Amino acid sequence: MKVHGQPMRTIWVEPDGWSVGIIDQTRLPHAFVTAQLTTMEAVAHAITSMQLRGAPLIGAAAAYGVCLALRVNPSDENLEKACATLAATRPTAINLRWALEEMRRALQPRAPSERPSAAYRRAAALCDEDVAINHGIGTQGLPLLREAWERKGQKGRLNILTHCNAGWLATVDWGTALAPIYLAHDAGIPVHVWVDETRPRNQGASLTAWELGQHGVPHTVIADNVGGHLMQHGHVDLCIVGTDRTTARGDVANKIGTYLKALAAKDNGVPFYVALPSPTIDWTLEDGVRGIPIEQRDGAELTDISGRLPSGDVVTVRITPPGSPAANYGFDVTPARLVTALVTERGVCAASPEGLRSLFPERMRGTGT
Amino acid sequence: MKVHGQPMRTIWVEPDGWSVGIIDQTRLPHAFVTAQLTTMEAVAHAITSMQLRGAPLIGAAAAYGVCLALRVNPSDENLEKACATLAATRPTAINLRWALEEMRRALQPRAPSERPSAAYRRAAALCDEDVAINHGIGTQGLPLLREAWERKGQKGRLNILTHCNAGWLATVDWGTALAPIYLAHDAGIPVHVWVDETRPRNQGASLTAWELGQHGVPHTVIADNVGGHLMQHGHVDLCIVGTDRTTARGDVANKIGTYLKALAAKDNGVPFYVALPSPTIDWTLEDGVRGIPIEQRDGAELTDISGRLPSGDVVTVRITPPGSPAANYGFDVTPARLVTALVTERGVCAASPEGLRSLFPERMRGTGT
Repeated sequence: MKVHGQPMRTIWVEPDGWSVGIIDQTRLPHAFVTAQLTTMEAVAHAITSMQLRGAPLIGAAAAYGVCLALRVNPSDENLEKACATLAATRPTAINLRWALEEMRRALQPRAPSERPSAAYRRAAALCDEDVAINHGIGTQGLPLLREAWERKGQKGRLNILTHCNAGWLATVDWGTALAPIYLAHDAGIPVHVWVDETRPRNQGASLTAWELGQHGVPHTVIADNVGGHLMQHGHVDLCIVGTDRTTARGDVANKIGTYLKALAAKDNGVPFYVALPSPTIDWTLEDGVRGIPIEQRDGAELTDISGRLPSGDVVTVRITPPGSPAANYGFDVTPARLVTALVTERGVCAASPEGLRSLFPERMRGTGT
Repeated sequence: MKVHGQPMRTIWVEPDGWSVGIIDQTRLPHAFVTAQLTTMEAVAHAITSMQLRGAPLIGAAAAYGVCLALRVNPSDENLEKACATLAATRPTAINLRWALEEMRRALQPRAPSERPSAAYRRAAALCDEDVAINHGIGTQGLPLLREAWERKGQKGRLNILTHCNAGWLATVDWGTALAPIYLAHDAGIPVHVWVDETRPRNQGASLTAWELGQHGVPHTVIADNVGGHLMQHGHVDLCIVGTDRTTARGDVANKIGTYLKALAAKDNGVPFYVALPSPTIDWTLEDGVRGIPIEQRDGAELTDISGRLPSGDVVTVRITPPGSPAANYGFDVTPARLVTALVTERGVCAASPEGLRSLFPERMRGTGT
């Protein structure tokens, strides 16, 4: 997508041929700043500090983290150490583990001397695959938006609610939940996006609003509390969100608060779609509420908010009284029963074991029996 | 309740015998500052700027606004003008209109010369009634908390989730939703309160956390997005919230986002109680979603957040990118079907026409036919 009119991805190899460039997302929307990562540890820090975030982008970054580690020491031991360190950065997203497994599989069989160049090739391919997958999600999801627009008699605007940031900033390019929205906007459907602020880290207010604004997509930022009221009054035509991990039966882990919006969508007959690249599916899990580990992060992410002063300086302020503790859960799980459909790069399916297996028959249990 | 160990109310007549003192709630939790109001216009401004807020406290303040107006000019015309001006300050809370009607009824029959002193007497009585009503809500609600604690086998702590501020800061004293919590805490039940931050104005993070802290009640501030996850995992024993207006069939208008918590409570079998003084009941309305006007406020309340710097200075920062608009709805309506019970000063009842009329038989239609 574009930044100030220039096409960009969220992660790239610098002109030196080995160091890794990223957009420092902790600086958005107040400043557009890139960062250069030169060590595996720097990549791990960028993930934990959320300089980059979003399940697909975390996977891509971890792949480059392996490259930077092997460049220094391509031994078996260092490959394992890098994978273990990077896997420990975030617990909920499955793409991270998937990307590291892809890297390990591509590199383990090779002689150590061949590993660094092979690692960069595989990481670049993973990035290109992510871009292709996300564009595929956009293509598969676009008809859902077009149908909603036609159901509405093509009157007014197509109001879409999204939570957190599942846009191109969360991926290498295009985004997951926002990919169909960008395609619909480009196709002339008058989309308008209700952007959930997404406390406590404000990814909606800071990242989704910023990237939609850069692309010229009409949007309005709302508090996370507002979606239910909007749905009660017919102001939301559909919801679409991303996911950090989807189980084999269609339970969806996504940014904390997603479950509340899915409940409201169900209560008001509003379609609730989840867009996901297939590496986000955890085929080993069924029950997401019981099975998916939910990250707990520092309470300071809730109590301390960054923003810019009228002077333009960015500062952090505390909103709670001294002595009041805070708890900070990163994700929640939306049961499949609340999900209208899953939108993948292979097509749209029901959030059910049968639905998922219809699109991914190679995952079907008991094949050949 | 107490502030720094000293008993206080939220509104009082100053020692001069006529001007009105309030706690400036826009300065909390960073500074405890009182303000002296000397004109009806200053009271109206204090309400619209939310120096004071909370449906019962708004009613009490409006009553004193009438006093200040009549002190200057006790004519019929000025009484009507004051009531009209004060009624227009906030559209959703019903107590405001109720308190003004009480004042008008007490003052209109009197000679203008008698009105100022009569107004102060009636306003003081309204405040005392509010305190008595809220203590009554606490007494009526306490058994619900005690039963929940016994159901839990008196193990661990009794986890209660609340949204916004329905504590003593929202009333003249005691609070509505928090009144039973204060009584339970004082009775030795180990309550712990999950305090919803309550975006966009952060009344939970700033006011509820502050007043619970002042009284020594254990609590944890959470993002508004978190409650569903906590309920899915058994970390909430009950929810209790206040209301700005409750219809005759038990639909509940309360701070935006209440509806989402009620949906999650229903989905997880968690009791969802609404505490209300009877003046909050709008006997003229049945369907709250269609009938209750929902205030829209300035989007800047969402985009601009106040907090304190490490230096102690309080500043306001913007969190959204330039050019991204924001929408700010103040309330939503929770349908009666999601409310486990209403807790009033007269007792606990079902959120239904029958439930409400059982407690308020004088409101029963068709009495005597």
